[in-house]
Amino acid sequence: MKHFTSVNDVNDLNKWVSEALKIKSDPLGFVDIGGQKTMGLVFLNPSLRTRMSTQKAAMNLGMNTMVINMDKEGWRLEMNDDVIMDGYTVEHIKEAAAVLGQYCDILGLRCFPNLKDKQEDYSEDILNKFIKYCGVPVVSLESATRHPLQSFADLITIKEHATKSKPKVVLTWAPHVKPLPQAVSNSFSEWMVKAQELNMVDFVITHPEGYELAEEFTKGAKITHNQNEALKDADFVYVKNWSSYSNYGEILTDGKGWMMDNEKLKLTDNAKVMHCLPVRRGLELGNDILDGKNSLVIHEAANRVYAAQTVLKKLIEGNKL
Amino acid sequence: MKHFTSVNDVNDLNKWVSEALKIKSDPLGFVDIGGQKTMGLVFLNPSLRTRMSTQKAAMNLGMNTMVINMDKEGWRLEMNDDVIMDGYTVEHIKEAAAVLGQYCDILGLRCFPNLKDKQEDYSEDILNKFIKYCGVPVVSLESATRHPLQSFADLITIKEHATKSKPKVVLTWAPHVKPLPQAVSNSFSEWMVKAQELNMVDFVITHPEGYELAEEFTKGAKITHNQNEALKDADFVYVKNWSSYSNYGEILTDGKGWMMDNEKLKLTDNAKVMHCLPVRRGLELGNDILDGKNSLVIHEAANRVYAAQTVLKKLIEGNKL
Amino acid sequence: MKHFTSVNDVNDLNKWVSEALKIKSDPLGFVDIGGQKTMGLVFLNPSLRTRMSTQKAAMNLGMNTMVINMDKEGWRLEMNDDVIMDGYTVEHIKEAAAVLGQYCDILGLRCFPNLKDKQEDYSEDILNKFIKYCGVPVVSLESATRHPLQSFADLITIKEHATKSKPKVVLTWAPHVKPLPQAVSNSFSEWMVKAQELNMVDFVITHPEGYELAEEFTKGAKITHNQNEALKDADFVYVKNWSSYSNYGEILTDGKGWMMDNEKLKLTDNAKVMHCLPVRRGLELGNDILDGKNSLVIHEAANRVYAAQTVLKKLIEGNKL
Repeated sequence: MKHFTSVNDVNDLNKWVSEALKIKSDPLGFVDIGGQKTMGLVFLNPSLRTRMSTQKAAMNLGMNTMVINMDKEGWRLEMNDDVIMDGYTVEHIKEAAAVLGQYCDILGLRCFPNLKDKQEDYSEDILNKFIKYCGVPVVSLESATRHPLQSFADLITIKEHATKSKPKVVLTWAPHVKPLPQAVSNSFSEWMVKAQELNMVDFVITHPEGYELAEEFTKGAKITHNQNEALKDADFVYVKNWSSYSNYGEILTDGKGWMMDNEKLKLTDNAKVMHCLPVRRGLELGNDILDGKNSLVIHEAANRVYAAQTVLKKLIEGNKL
Repeated sequence: MKHFTSVNDVNDLNKWVSEALKIKSDPLGFVDIGGQKTMGLVFLNPSLRTRMSTQKAAMNLGMNTMVINMDKEGWRLEMNDDVIMDGYTVEHIKEAAAVLGQYCDILGLRCFPNLKDKQEDYSEDILNKFIKYCGVPVVSLESATRHPLQSFADLITIKEHATKSKPKVVLTWAPHVKPLPQAVSNSFSEWMVKAQELNMVDFVITHPEGYELAEEFTKGAKITHNQNEALKDADFVYVKNWSSYSNYGEILTDGKGWMMDNEKLKLTDNAKVMHCLPVRRGLELGNDILDGKNSLVIHEAANRVYAAQTVLKKLIEGNKL
Repeated sequence: MKHFTSVNDVNDLNKWVSEALKIKSDPLGFVDIGGQKTMGLVFLNPSLRTRMSTQKAAMNLGMNTMVINMDKEGWRLEMNDDVIMDGYTVEHIKEAAAVLGQYCDILGLRCFPNLKDKQEDYSEDILNKFIKYCGVPVVSLESATRHPLQSFADLITIKEHATKSKPKVVLTWAPHVKPLPQAVSNSFSEWMVKAQELNMVDFVITHPEGYELAEEFTKGAKITHNQNEALKDADFVYVKNWSSYSNYGEILTDGKGWMMDNEKLKLTDNAKVMHCLPVRRGLELGNDILDGKNSLVIHEAANRVYAAQTVLKKLIEGNKL
C-alpha cells in the first residue's frame, strides 16, 4: 500500500480489523517503528477529532508530528494548471505539495468538497494532485467524497460490539440544518459493502427520496426509503446526515420523523447506535439515545486512534520508510 | 488529587512549594514519569504564557502534548442540556469533553467568564461539565473564577524572594481600560488566605469602593480602601486590575492615583512588585518599577513552568496514570 | 556565535556549507545534542516553509519545539518605550520577549517590515529589541531586511548543483502584483557578495530602474538594468520580486518582459533557476521553467532543513546550551 484514501487500499479487511484490535490492546507496542520520522497533518478545512486521533496515533508509533492548518496559517492554493497567478492564490499546489513532501515522511490531507460543482468534487482533484506532487505516502483525513479513517474506526467498533457473526447494519439518513458532504456516508457504505461481500455484515441503507448516494459507493447494499422497515431487527444503526447527491449539495426536506430515538430503537434488535460526531443533539439523534447505554459514539471516536495507527504502521512498513 | 482547579486541591501548601523548588533546581529530574502519556491543552480563550509554560512542564516530564484552540480551530460548544441543536452550536460539551478524554491522559482547560451573567460565571458550569464528561484528570488553565497555576507560581515566587519568615503581602487593585475577570485576584487571594492560615504570610487587600471580591475567596484577609495604609511596610505588592463583582463586570472608576510606581514603593519595606502579565505599562504599573530591580514579573512567569510541573507530576502519581 | 541574523554571523562560509551537506547526508547524526532543549518559533507574520523546515531541523537534533503564532494566538505588542498603554497594544515587547526566553533555549523570530516607514523597517527595531530582552540565542526566521536561513539554503543548493568552481550567479527582479519586502533579495545579495569575496561565485544583479537595493547589501556586486546582458552565460538565475527601496514599498512597473522563461534561459549557460517560494506561476516565473529540469525550487526548500539544522547545532554548541 502506497497511499490510504479508500477501502480499496485495504487488502484484507478482516486482518486489518484484527490488527487494529491488537494495537488497541497494546498501543505502545510499536513505539519504536516511527523513530524520528515525521507525520505532517495538512488541513484545508478545520478538524478536531481527526487531527487529535491521528496525531496521537503517530505519537504512539514514536513519530514526530507537524500540523499545518492551511486554511488559517497558510495561503490560498492554486489548483489549475497554466494559469497566470496574478490574483488571490498565493501558491500552486504543485509547489506546496512538493515542499510539504520534503519535510514529512507521511502526509495526511483533509480537503472538503465545495458542494457546488459535483463533477469537480467527485473527481477528487485536490487529493489526486496532492498525491501526484508531494512524493510521499498520503493518508486521507477526509476528502471530497470519502472519510476512510472514520469508516475503518466504525468497522472496528462494529466488530468489537457485535454479538452475532453477521450483524445487520443500517445506515440511516438524519435531519440537519446545514448541507453536509456525502463523504462519511459514501465511505461508510463502501466499507460495509466490502464487509458484506466478506460475510462480515448484512448492510441496509435508508433515506428519504432524493438522497440516493452515488452508486459507486452503494452497489450491493439494500436501499429503502422506508426507515421503519430498514430498522427492523437491526444490530447497529449508523446515523448520518448528508445533502443530496442528485440535486447536488441541496437540502430537500427538513426530515421530520427521521431522527433516531428510543422509540425507533424498539424496532431494532436492541441495536447499538453510531455516529461519527460532531452530532446535533435533538436534531440528528435523540438525547435519550446519546445518554443511554446503546450509544457507541465515544467508542468510535476512541477507535479513530487505532484505525489511524494501523494505517500508519502499514504505510511505514509498506513503503519501507 | 483527581483534578487541580483551586487551592482546595492542595493538601500541603508548604510541601508543594518545596517540591516545586526542588523541581526547579533539576527540571529534567522526572523526565521518565510521563513517557508517551499525552497532555491535552484545550483553550476556549487565547493563551500565551499558560500554553507555553504548561507545554514546557509536560515536556520536562517526558509527556507528549496536544494543543486544541477550540476558539479558533474547533467549533462552538453547546453547554445546555435537552436542547434541540438546530442553531449555531456544533457539538455538545458532553461529546466534546468525552472525545478529548479518549485522546489524552490529562486535560488542561481554559474557559474565561463572559462577565455578563455573574451566577453563570461563578457556577463554573463549563469547567464542571468538562470535568464531569471527559473522564480524565483536569487542570484548570484559568477558569471563570480562578487561575490556580498562576497563584501557585506566585506563591513559589514569594517563598523564593522572602527575607522574612512571614512577609506582608498586599494585593492592590490597579486601573485598566478593559473590564477584566476577577479570576486572578480571586485565586491569588484564596491562596494567600490559606498561606496566612499556615503562618506563611500576612495578607492585605486594597481596592476602591465597589471592587470587593466575592467573600468566599477573601475571608480571613484584611481589606481596606486606603491603598497607602495597605502598602505600609509591605514586602510584596501584587498588582492587578479586576472589574467589579457587585456591579458585575463593570468598570466603576478610571482609578487615577491607584497605579503602583516608585513613589508609592517608598511606603513599603522596599517591596518586591508582582504582576501575572500581560501588564499595561504606565497604566497598571509604572515603567519605573517594571524596569527596576524590585520587579518580580519575569520570575513569576518562569515559575509557571515549575508550578505546572509539580501539579502534573502529582496528577500522574495520584491517578496512577 | 550568539545569534543568527545575517551572513555576518558566519565565520567561515565554505565550512558552513560543507557542514550542512554533511548533516544532509545523515540528518539524524546529531539527534542527541538537543535532548529536551526547547526551540520556540515566534511568528509575528505567517509562515509555512520556514516554520516546518525549522521545526524539522530542531526535531532532527532531538529538540522539543513550540510554535507561537503571535499574529493569531497572541496579542498586539507595544514596541515603544515610555508609553501609557491605554490603547490597543496588550503587552510590551520587553515583557513578551523576556517571558518567551524563560520557556525556550533558542528562539526563532519572524517579523516582516510594514513597508511604510523605511527608516523604521531598516533599523530592525523589532528584531533588535527582541534580542535585547529575551536573553537567549535568537535565529532570524526573516526579519524586516533579511532572510538569512533562506540565503544559506540557497548557497547550499548552488554548491550542490554547481559544475564549475566559480559559477556565475544572477539575481533578477521579477514582476508581482503585490508590494513585497526586499528581505530575501537583500539577504541573497549579501550572501553572494560574501561568497564572491571568497571566490565561490561571480555575482550579478539585474532589475528595472528604481529597484536598486540598499547599498549595504549589494556593495561588490555587478548591477545592470539590462536583464539580457546579465543572463548571458549565467549558471544560476535567482528570480525574485521586491518593491522599490528608493520609492519605499512602491510598485514602479508591471515588469512586462522581466518574467524568466525558457526563451530567456537560452541566453544562459543552461542555467539552473531558483526561487525562494511561494512563486506566482506565469507572473514571476514561467510554468515551462518550473515544470522543467532546470528548476531548483524544491531543492532549495528541502535545503532549508539543513541550513536551519546547521545554525541550530552551532547555536547549541556556541552558547554551551
